[in-house]
Amino acid sequence: MATAGKVIKCKAAVAWEAGKPLSIEEVEVAPPQAMEVRVKILYTALCHTDVYFWEAKGQTPVFPRILGHEAGGIVESVGEGVTELVPGDHVLPVFTGECKECAHCKSEESNLCDLLRINVDRGVMIGDGQSRFTIDGKPIFHFVGTSTFSEYTVIHVGCLAKINPEAPLDKVCVLSCGISTGLGATLNVAKPKKGSTVAIFGLGAVGLAAMEGARMAGASRIIGVDLNPAKYEQAKKFGCTDFVNPKDYTKPVQEVLVEMTNGGLDRAVECTGHIDAMIAAFECVHDGWGVAVLVGVPHKEAVFKTHPMNFLNERTLKGTFFGNYKPRTDLPEVVEMYMRKELDLEKFITHSVPFSQINTAFDLMLKGEGLRCVMRMDE
Amino acid sequence: MATAGKVIKCKAAVAWEAGKPLSIEEVEVAPPQAMEVRVKILYTALCHTDVYFWEAKGQTPVFPRILGHEAGGIVESVGEGVTELVPGDHVLPVFTGECKECAHCKSEESNLCDLLRINVDRGVMIGDGQSRFTIDGKPIFHFVGTSTFSEYTVIHVGCLAKINPEAPLDKVCVLSCGISTGLGATLNVAKPKKGSTVAIFGLGAVGLAAMEGARMAGASRIIGVDLNPAKYEQAKKFGCTDFVNPKDYTKPVQEVLVEMTNGGLDRAVECTGHIDAMIAAFECVHDGWGVAVLVGVPHKEAVFKTHPMNFLNERTLKGTFFGNYKPRTDLPEVVEMYMRKELDLEKFITHSVPFSQINTAFDLMLKGEGLRCVMRMDE
Ligand SMILES: NC(=O)c1ccc[n+]([C@@H]2O[C@H](COP(=O)([O-])OP(=O)(O)OC[C@H]3O[C@@H](n4cnc5c(N)ncnc54)[C@H](O)[C@@H]3O)[C@@H](O)[C@H]2O)c1
Ligand SMILES: NC(=O)c1ccc[n+]([C@@H]2O[C@H](COP(=O)([O-])OP(=O)(O)OC[C@H]3O[C@@H](n4cnc5c(N)ncnc54)[C@H](O)[C@@H]3O)[C@@H](O)[C@H]2O)c1
Ligand SMILES: [Zn+2]
Ligand SMILES: [Zn+2]
Ligand SMILES: [Zn+2]
Ligand SMILES: [Zn+2]
Repeated sequence: MATAGKVIKCKAAVAWEAGKPLSIEEVEVAPPQAMEVRVKILYTALCHTDVYFWEAKGQTPVFPRILGHEAGGIVESVGEGVTELVPGDHVLPVFTGECKECAHCKSEESNLCDLLRINVDRGVMIGDGQSRFTIDGKPIFHFVGTSTFSEYTVIHVGCLAKINPEAPLDKVCVLSCGISTGLGATLNVAKPKKGSTVAIFGLGAVGLAAMEGARMAGASRIIGVDLNPAKYEQAKKFGCTDFVNPKDYTKPVQEVLVEMTNGGLDRAVECTGHIDAMIAAFECVHDGWGVAVLVGVPHKEAVFKTHPMNFLNERTLKGTFFGNYKPRTDLPEVVEMYMRKELDLEKFITHSVPFSQINTAFDLMLKGEGLRCVMRMDE
Repeated sequence: MATAGKVIKCKAAVAWEAGKPLSIEEVEVAPPQAMEVRVKILYTALCHTDVYFWEAKGQTPVFPRILGHEAGGIVESVGEGVTELVPGDHVLPVFTGECKECAHCKSEESNLCDLLRINVDRGVMIGDGQSRFTIDGKPIFHFVGTSTFSEYTVIHVGCLAKINPEAPLDKVCVLSCGISTGLGATLNVAKPKKGSTVAIFGLGAVGLAAMEGARMAGASRIIGVDLNPAKYEQAKKFGCTDFVNPKDYTKPVQEVLVEMTNGGLDRAVECTGHIDAMIAAFECVHDGWGVAVLVGVPHKEAVFKTHPMNFLNERTLKGTFFGNYKPRTDLPEVVEMYMRKELDLEKFITHSVPFSQINTAFDLMLKGEGLRCVMRMDE
């Protein structure tokens, strides 16, 4: 490639300050250093986490910053020591990585890589503590090691999943984060058996992906639980058979669910981030075999409280991060599930805009409209 | 059998009042009714649960009562509809049953039988709501469906495990309750892999049985945690490699354990019944793959509290009842583990007395001496 080893000038959406509209700027993207890869982003989607760190409420602000972490792209060039990827490979960047060498990466169960675990405060590369983005020589910070709101970005090789080059990047780009998180929570952690009953708390993109997992696993009854009744219509497309709004009852929603299901659900997956929903998700599963899985990211002060007899009666509570998928090892197979038409991604992509209209994507998410807005970098 | 269908007069230890020494009385034991079995008890052991319901503090008293639930015996006669057992069969009575027909019995995971789940308040047979024990025609209440402190007792067929007749009943009788509970908590629920690290909270009989399970599973490091330092010596015989007394530290014991194990234990099994130990057992397991199992029976007002991030970081919390063993289906195989010398039961049996000295067994337990005292009915 003619660009390899050279600084690339390209467009990126820069967040200069908390909560202010992003502005498309020309940035310089330095070549990848050891164990790094420079990726040409073709499509990127917007996720709540981008908005959350853009609003930066109650956080140590890290600005100016290039946000973005759900994307699909093509390897432009690789740094020293990168042997797994070559220019031209199709990749999904992931906000958490897999070094393949730490105790977590070597464990069959964990995906919480010691080296590349998500770090939302760090705005630089882990190799040398520097940013690869500059404007007129002044550094612009990275975001969760991905910064996909840029035509080119530099990413640690451990945070890139090499995928089938036939997979349409404008669709599979949404597998970088929330959709895989929800899907894996059900398929890898809750593991409902065919014919079982499943409750999904929170019908945002993550919850609907958890629901898609329940549908794929052959659940016979899928109860959606959300405080917003408008969520039911959309959820039906994801296999939702019943809808419960906790606000419609005076008694706790877990009691409502236990009554509806003759003793409790076989599985429950919580995708709200609210502690009440976490407790309800656990307490609504059946004694003897029920499994509840927590996905939502709670407040710092949240406390999970329950009577220990709820455990003694043989209920299981687990949590998951990124659906227990190991980014490099497992994501390529999730892409294949899409290719085999077992997994439907189209229904998650409710909007698409040119990259230049990225602030429209932010507006849609702030208004709660739609699930995923995919941005086309070449427009 | 000459006695079949007739009332049998025999000796039993009757608890006339809460906390008063038991007295050996001649009782009448009625023939078994439909789905019931009359069992000649040869050996019975004493467990904390007997003492607890004998003390009856804060409980609705159910007296006069024949306590006892860890035992080994031989079928004397069977009632109508009993096809699985015949006179002469060797059996272990169990305080919880397996009807083989309810949703729990049909589930591979649960042992919480809807029909025969433990009921500590009921003092009568479930078939007709009557007691099978009388003295001069006046009923004496049953205890958890077993009442093994009697030379003969009547038990629902669903609460009897038919075992290998070659197994020595004076040893395997201790598998009726606490030992199987602890053993199964580790082998069936925590499932440590070979070479893993395991913490056991509470080094009573249940905890030591959980430790025996960890030893059998090939754990490389077994940390015993108890408030009583005297427990360490005995625990060494069960494979305890390290001992931690929470009282020796100012910081929470979970932090001590996490430091000792470079990030946390692979597995923890709580066998204390104390909420602090339950929380510590959960919070001391490693993120990514740690599993904690609760066994101890908590106070009614106990609240399990933890930060939900402890789940999100991929820890699992489960509880178990009777070590997840289904009494009829699974106990025979536990007896076989003993027969194959994989499981060592001798070290649990620290005392043995004639049945007539049952109050000595109570004294030993109240003083906290030894683990199990086996009583010989024929003396
Ligand atoms: N979005 C991601 O990529 C991602 C990745 C990993 C984890 N998570 C976490 O998963 C959670 C869900 O993410 P999302 O993007 O789908 O969010 P979202 O805001 O789109 O959806 C959350 C839904 O939960 C509902 N809700 C809130 N409180 C509730 C309650 N008490 N009971 C029932 N419903 C309730 C809301 O009405 C909303 O529909 C968040 O906590 C997020 O941090 C998200
Ligand atoms: N005994 C049974 O047959 C049986 C069956 C099922 C469940 N259980 C439950 O299992 C638990 C243990 O039974 P057991 O018979 O071994 O009891 P036990 O009283 O002999 O042993 C409990 C041990 O826990 C220790 N302990 C108490 N609080 C502690 C704390 N905060 N941290 C660390 N150690 C602590 C005590 O010092 C004691 O050594 C009980 O809650 C019991 O109800 C027992
Ligand atoms: Zn790693
Ligand atoms: Zn995201
Ligand atoms: Zn049953
Ligand atoms: Zn017991």
